[in-house]
Amino acid sequence: MNIRLYNARILTMQDFNLIEGELHVKDGRISYIGEAGQNSGEQWDREIDCKRNLLMPGFKNAHTHSGMTLMRTYADGLPLQEWLETKIFPLEAKMSGEDVALLSKLAILEYLTSGVTAVFDMYLTPETIADAFYESGMRVVQVSGINKFGPTLEVLEERYNKLNGVNDMTSFMLGFHAEYTCDRDLLEKIAEMAHKYKAPVYTHNSETAREVEECVGRYGMTPTVFLDSLGMFDYGGGGYHCVHMSDQDIEVFKKHDMSVVTNPGSNTKLASGIAPIRRFLDEGINVAIGTDGPSSNNCLDMFKEMCLVFSLANIREKNALAVDGCDILKMATVGGAKAMGLKDCDVLAVGKWADLIMIDMHQPNMQPENDIVRNLVYSGSKQNVKMTMIAGKILYEDGKFNIGTDAETIYREANAILPRLIKEM
Amino acid sequence: MNIRLYNARILTMQDFNLIEGELHVKDGRISYIGEAGQNSGEQWDREIDCKRNLLMPGFKNAHTHSGMTLMRTYADGLPLQEWLETKIFPLEAKMSGEDVALLSKLAILEYLTSGVTAVFDMYLTPETIADAFYESGMRVVQVSGINKFGPTLEVLEERYNKLNGVNDMTSFMLGFHAEYTCDRDLLEKIAEMAHKYKAPVYTHNSETAREVEECVGRYGMTPTVFLDSLGMFDYGGGGYHCVHMSDQDIEVFKKHDMSVVTNPGSNTKLASGIAPIRRFLDEGINVAIGTDGPSSNNCLDMFKEMCLVFSLANIREKNALAVDGCDILKMATVGGAKAMGLKDCDVLAVGKWADLIMIDMHQPNMQPENDIVRNLVYSGSKQNVKMTMIAGKILYEDGKFNIGTDAETIYREANAILPRLIKEM
Repeated sequence: MNIRLYNARILTMQDFNLIEGELHVKDGRISYIGEAGQNSGEQWDREIDCKRNLLMPGFKNAHTHSGMTLMRTYADGLPLQEWLETKIFPLEAKMSGEDVALLSKLAILEYLTSGVTAVFDMYLTPETIADAFYESGMRVVQVSGINKFGPTLEVLEERYNKLNGVNDMTSFMLGFHAEYTCDRDLLEKIAEMAHKYKAPVYTHNSETAREVEECVGRYGMTPTVFLDSLGMFDYGGGGYHCVHMSDQDIEVFKKHDMSVVTNPGSNTKLASGIAPIRRFLDEGINVAIGTDGPSSNNCLDMFKEMCLVFSLANIREKNALAVDGCDILKMATVGGAKAMGLKDCDVLAVGKWADLIMIDMHQPNMQPENDIVRNLVYSGSKQNVKMTMIAGKILYEDGKFNIGTDAETIYREANAILPRLIKEM
Repeated sequence: MNIRLYNARILTMQDFNLIEGELHVKDGRISYIGEAGQNSGEQWDREIDCKRNLLMPGFKNAHTHSGMTLMRTYADGLPLQEWLETKIFPLEAKMSGEDVALLSKLAILEYLTSGVTAVFDMYLTPETIADAFYESGMRVVQVSGINKFGPTLEVLEERYNKLNGVNDMTSFMLGFHAEYTCDRDLLEKIAEMAHKYKAPVYTHNSETAREVEECVGRYGMTPTVFLDSLGMFDYGGGGYHCVHMSDQDIEVFKKHDMSVVTNPGSNTKLASGIAPIRRFLDEGINVAIGTDGPSSNNCLDMFKEMCLVFSLANIREKNALAVDGCDILKMATVGGAKAMGLKDCDVLAVGKWADLIMIDMHQPNMQPENDIVRNLVYSGSKQNVKMTMIAGKILYEDGKFNIGTDAETIYREANAILPRLIKEM
């Protein structure tokens, strides 16, 4: 499908200048960005008048558990540990791979409404998750959530070899759930695997003060420093959350060029705290943004997360310019792509995958156009997402989905799962 | 226009139970709420199949400066005082009543996309603002922003008599900009007027720590206590912001049954702090929610404000259940109506004005339906607002506006104002 998008304003995210003109897509990749009038004689499957709306790279949701749509607004209002142990883990023990695939498709619909073109997903059944994303046409980077309850290291290694790069849309990273859900022996073996494959490793890291304290109690070190002492991050990687970080932790992240994936919606919902984003930026650490799973947020909305990054940094730093909107937009796009190893769909440029969105500028919240880029961060919402395209395929346009499965069918089936699982418990 | 809305789920906000059935609108008011099948033989101008979407009262944006759409994302990143004095006041000195009316219409479009059916507006030219809202079909409660730079007390009194209740859609409250922009003599005269009319008074109150400190320096009292000592709140009223509140301040609010209007988007953008919402609720104080003006936010999105009320309370209280979603939805609807004196459009009930919205449940962020009401607060967005009706008239439906003026015309004219004013400065 070759598509010409004309009459557009284009934010490539290589810088913050806007290009007025058009963008061409051929075989899933961007073939041209620039002035109008360069399409003489070409054949297009579709030509789209962008009506001066904005084209920009899609958002990268750099930490999520898609299948947890099941527990959205279920058992809300508990602190992290209690919520996990009494509510979430017992339900998850009953979920089938089919359930997870269906619930992931529900999440995919929501990602598309929020202009998300790739997600960094950690959940129970990577094989069915890979299928659900591939069938839907959505890009996914999966990461292992191994812990002392499962799966085995053999399964982890098999998935790493089987699912990583099985197609253009799917990759798989080494990772584990968290220091506090893994024994030392297991962690050492994961670090060995990272060395074997020269691979980065990702995990939930320093999300709550309690987690850090307990790790210090166990090993005399913070989670970051302890894991680094095992050689876990010798090939890089990153941490989800990173709310409670010491100077030494920050040095570890710098030394291994690791990424912080911040999850402000989840960190406020579970009262975990505010991550030191200003500090990370000052230290030159790559920062990405994730929604976390929908049962600890409760939505998959990158505009909400960007708003919270902004608002919370100002509160933490007591400074009205703690983090600039342009920096936040970078986190939500190129920062995410870097964290997820997506070198080929980070910015809009010729040769890159056409993973892009159209932002509706003909909405009152985008007017007047005093500062289009910052306005997106400070005033934008899902309501402004007019189109979401992944690898050149339009999966969402003017409120309509195109992922191969009917949205109403997904809603109906998703609603049937929780009652069934509760009955089985 | 008599409208039958059927096949709906109805959240009246009298409680949190959902009614399955239909809602009828006659002559702008609600004539029936209940089970289906009660419309035998009636003539309708329009019958709307709600497709099991949710009908609920519209949001009340209980503090805004609509005309400040002009400065949206203009001169961002300054602390409150500097931003006001160096950027905002010089521009405002040049704005005409016509400018303010046009910019208010731009705000009205945005309110409608967010399901807002009434706003509590404080801005420069109340006469042209009243006209802009009335022409658009939107409900507005205006409040005077008098301060030592203008207008005169005579003008304030004239407006109070002329604009308050001039039609069903418009009221006008006594108020002033803030303690720190008014001399003592002026404040005493406003308090006298409040006594003369037995009227409540509203003002920006205890927004920043600096404001409170300076007032204590001037009068030996916090703004709330000082203003109360003048008899300002003897007939009630309320404060916008109320971030930095002492025990004594809270007693004043309780004594006079005053409302707190919280503005978390603005308070985080300007790094003013987090208001003690949990405390207000525990003390039984009525809490409403406002966006503040779009140049200190930068949007007019009640979903964003609800999200921030929730997130910030958890951070402030270090408690994952600091404020419940149902309480927040109450603040954004009935709490706002109470603060604004809108007794006739607070909840959905027979005889009340049909100020209501339809929430699209056929969206992934509303699924599964584990907890519909809390889900609205934790996961909802402007994208879910399918229809906004005020006094029985549909002003926004499926992304289309119906306010008498074309949206593109408003955008074009709004974009022309700032360059013109800067040239005049």
